[in-house]
Amino acid sequence: MAKKIGVVLSGCGVYDGSEIHEAVITLLAIDRNGAEAVCMAPNIAQMHVVNHLTGEVAANETRNVLVEAARIARGKIKDLATVKAAEIDALILPGGFGAAKNLCDFAVKGADCSVNPEVARLIREMVAAKKPVGAVCIAPAILSKVLGADKLPHQLTIGTDAGTAAALTGMGSQHVQCPAREFVVDKTNKLVSSPAYMLAGGIAEAAEGIEKCVKAVIGLID
Amino acid sequence: MAKKIGVVLSGCGVYDGSEIHEAVITLLAIDRNGAEAVCMAPNIAQMHVVNHLTGEVAANETRNVLVEAARIARGKIKDLATVKAAEIDALILPGGFGAAKNLCDFAVKGADCSVNPEVARLIREMVAAKKPVGAVCIAPAILSKVLGADKLPHQLTIGTDAGTAAALTGMGSQHVQCPAREFVVDKTNKLVSSPAYMLAGGIAEAAEGIEKCVKAVIGLID
Repeated sequence: MAKKIGVVLSGCGVYDGSEIHEAVITLLAIDRNGAEAVCMAPNIAQMHVVNHLTGEVAANETRNVLVEAARIARGKIKDLATVKAAEIDALILPGGFGAAKNLCDFAVKGADCSVNPEVARLIREMVAAKKPVGAVCIAPAILSKVLGADKLPHQLTIGTDAGTAAALTGMGSQHVQCPAREFVVDKTNKLVSSPAYMLAGGIAEAAEGIEKCVKAVIGLID
Repeated sequence: MAKKIGVVLSGCGVYDGSEIHEAVITLLAIDRNGAEAVCMAPNIAQMHVVNHLTGEVAANETRNVLVEAARIARGKIKDLATVKAAEIDALILPGGFGAAKNLCDFAVKGADCSVNPEVARLIREMVAAKKPVGAVCIAPAILSKVLGADKLPHQLTIGTDAGTAAALTGMGSQHVQCPAREFVVDKTNKLVSSPAYMLAGGIAEAAEGIEKCVKAVIGLID
């Protein structure tokens, strides 16, 4: 049986949803490692819609995170609220502003952010079950908030940005500096993180770190 | 100087725009081959918007092809009407229903389709300049219509689907059967095509053919 890797999407597009390159590279790496992706997203409204051509907020538009994330998943996607840790072997959260706007509100509130309750619930279930969790780009902020609130000592990377790293430290993480082509493993808690487009200058650079991250996550499955 | 590879996008999502996996894998392969992607899309309304969770047409929604394609390009994208063959070294068209709904109307009219005039203009400029053109999944239908109308003998693949292959033959192509992991080269006209999700059962299978296609396109640049 192929290992099942949950992939938490947050919409479709770097400025208001999942970073598309990171999400697709994650799905490709999962398949190339002989595992099976289980895409999921919360069935909630996006924080907002950003016109990716102009960078401006499209004031009169609303979109649903699950419906837009279904574009990346080619329609094969689950409502995250229905997914239990028992049915997957590992979990990976790609980045994009959607991770910090829709899965939590870190983009607005920094260290004082709140995490979507179902996202937090699934992360806690995974960590309690000793199943590996990977997070890419800005998504480690979500793990930081959830595990920090639980007073669980843990290590993550968000790259090298001092302000963002300080926010993670403020939420309770030990932050480890890391370049885009590498990744950080917290073996005790089975957490894997990689900076991807927090630092990467291009898609191949982001891909290298993500591919290593996915391989490490799968390698940590019992 | 890195070679510049035009990438013609048609929206963002397999059912009404560019197939996202194919587009991202194309961008990644271009970067990994040391070339530079130049993303572009026509600045026109999509034929329609499809809810990718339900598969239903969202009757009251309208979206713009260039604005949605900008999601895949992380905002770095040009209006296709402004791009001349002189400024790029090769051109690649990923697939998805957008290629057959927005770049032309093959999805509705089959062999009787019309191609967006600017898309047709750029393809003709590339072929006249002996610059390579790649097409993935359903996108070879666009090349078939343009080159068939010009009575230019040429070879393409659309995979193995007899009905779609017959439509290409009807438009003037010689159709060559091809599995998802391979590609077809028309050396005379510098055309490269690969079936991708016309046949592929998963993302890694599609990626193998696309990666070979991109490498072949770049290899055909003078």
